[in-house]
Amino acid sequence: MPELRKDAVTGRWVIISTDRARRPTDFVRAPVTVQGGRVCPFCPGNEQKTPPELLAYRGGSAPNSPGWRLRCVPNKFPALRVEGDLDRRGDGVYDLMNGVGAHEAFIETPDHFASLSEQSERQIEELLWAFRDRTLDLKRDERMQYVLLFKNHGEAAGATLEHSHSQLIALPIVPRQVQEEMDGALRYFQFRERCVFCDMIRQDSTGGQRMVLETDQFLVMAPYAPRFPFETWILPRRHSSHFESADHGVLQNLAWVLRSTLRRIDQVLERPAYNLVIHGAPLREAPMGHYHWHIEIIPKLTKAAGFEWGTGFHVNPTPPEEAAQFLRDAI
Amino acid sequence: MPELRKDAVTGRWVIISTDRARRPTDFVRAPVTVQGGRVCPFCPGNEQKTPPELLAYRGGSAPNSPGWRLRCVPNKFPALRVEGDLDRRGDGVYDLMNGVGAHEAFIETPDHFASLSEQSERQIEELLWAFRDRTLDLKRDERMQYVLLFKNHGEAAGATLEHSHSQLIALPIVPRQVQEEMDGALRYFQFRERCVFCDMIRQDSTGGQRMVLETDQFLVMAPYAPRFPFETWILPRRHSSHFESADHGVLQNLAWVLRSTLRRIDQVLERPAYNLVIHGAPLREAPMGHYHWHIEIIPKLTKAAGFEWGTGFHVNPTPPEEAAQFLRDAI
Repeated sequence: MPELRKDAVTGRWVIISTDRARRPTDFVRAPVTVQGGRVCPFCPGNEQKTPPELLAYRGGSAPNSPGWRLRCVPNKFPALRVEGDLDRRGDGVYDLMNGVGAHEAFIETPDHFASLSEQSERQIEELLWAFRDRTLDLKRDERMQYVLLFKNHGEAAGATLEHSHSQLIALPIVPRQVQEEMDGALRYFQFRERCVFCDMIRQDSTGGQRMVLETDQFLVMAPYAPRFPFETWILPRRHSSHFESADHGVLQNLAWVLRSTLRRIDQVLERPAYNLVIHGAPLREAPMGHYHWHIEIIPKLTKAAGFEWGTGFHVNPTPPEEAAQFLRDAI
Repeated sequence: MPELRKDAVTGRWVIISTDRARRPTDFVRAPVTVQGGRVCPFCPGNEQKTPPELLAYRGGSAPNSPGWRLRCVPNKFPALRVEGDLDRRGDGVYDLMNGVGAHEAFIETPDHFASLSEQSERQIEELLWAFRDRTLDLKRDERMQYVLLFKNHGEAAGATLEHSHSQLIALPIVPRQVQEEMDGALRYFQFRERCVFCDMIRQDSTGGQRMVLETDQFLVMAPYAPRFPFETWILPRRHSSHFESADHGVLQNLAWVLRSTLRRIDQVLERPAYNLVIHGAPLREAPMGHYHWHIEIIPKLTKAAGFEWGTGFHVNPTPPEEAAQFLRDAI
């Protein structure tokens, strides 16, 4: 019998097919491969092909020259522009404002061929530091309400350049998905006076069927009501609403946890394309007792997604308990 | 300068790129073609390959035999099962219920090669009648809260059989997307004491930049804050919350309007894959002053959609005013 399951945070219902569960080998495999060969604007020596860097970790060499370990640059074709006023206004029944914001790329490594999961723990930790540094910098711009940190890995997941990179979009509004999570988490908090994410961590830790991996600082799990097969969340054990408030010990452990998670996904699903996104509280909010920052990873396994757009309704062919077991048993 | 636009119904913000607008020819064209050749369970003579029909329009021949113009059958691999109790229950912090519901297919035509846009007005009208008949039948089942009517056209949009068909999923809950529309429309109604859809129709009718097509009964338009390029809505002019309450005159006109809309999309975008969904009020609700049934059509033009899942955030490269002009000028 299929199950209708409710996400404890947002209240969204999804159908989980328990009858004909799809295992990793049931999906069409399309491993992400790096071809190389073309001139890559993200490779060392081509620094002039990107806008001037906003941040770089480098060993003493000059800005916008080789010798860096990580660079952050403005997106050459930004979805939003950093200049100008918001100028919120109406148009009859409608509302609009100027597309003010920021759109940046993190070039994670000078190595054209190393995907994030193949990078060293130290490199991944530096990426996390860069996420934090850029977020704190943009927080000083009062027009910005939210910083979205994300990664599209592989063309099928929306990456347009194959050299491994992550992205940041700073927005003058809070994105819907995060707002829904905050609203749902607040309702839970008002009812129980506890954080719903903390309660999930407690329920799904050691021995739980949906647990993938755990350390003293993090829990990696398949959510109870995932929209997509092998959707995976990484949650810090200690309650914290803002990613950018993470300290050295947390980011260091997260680097290991993220690397292990991605390597397990690579192994079980044969190096799939994926989307990764960090959900944290909005920039202007004080620390929140009811919201809990976390990372969501969605492997790109199913082709069609149009129906879901029209309905907001998801049918997931893989129960999270089975997905978690595959990932738990990997490596 | 890009624009951030707010959907008047749901309050969702989207980025509209006005600088580098993508025209129809800028998208990768992948026309949906019908191959034929295989044994098709939806073709006349193969009626035994589907579960027994729930409804058919036929000229006097026996059930589950050839001679039909349209058939509705249960889905052979249903996402939900019609038998059993909901049995709502908890699992610690989580909630679930049995996957009780219905999943049906409408075989729109005996002609294996005729897509919906190529069918006659009369055939399309019969499909609309079948939608209505099945909805009214399922409404009698008190476990069902919502009937979702939709169509996936083309493999890229999720169709698994090429013989033109539509689908129905009856649910024991109201899908999120519809709930959000109802919530947003209610807020508008509480503030203005008018239906937001009726106000949109008034603003975007004759001479409007987003108008695609209009009759005395319907307005076809590009929404002000579309998530996707060439997203198109069909709205009845006379306020009505429930699709299934549409009368003969409305469905007859809708058949013409839907056919003309799909033919325009076919022409401008070269027979693209698309998703079509009917949004109406939930089965158990009395007629609502604030909600207005309508059809949403989303051509499948862009490849990546993963980022949007993680964030709920959409960047649309085609302003709706330009999309509408292409569709308005077609044919």
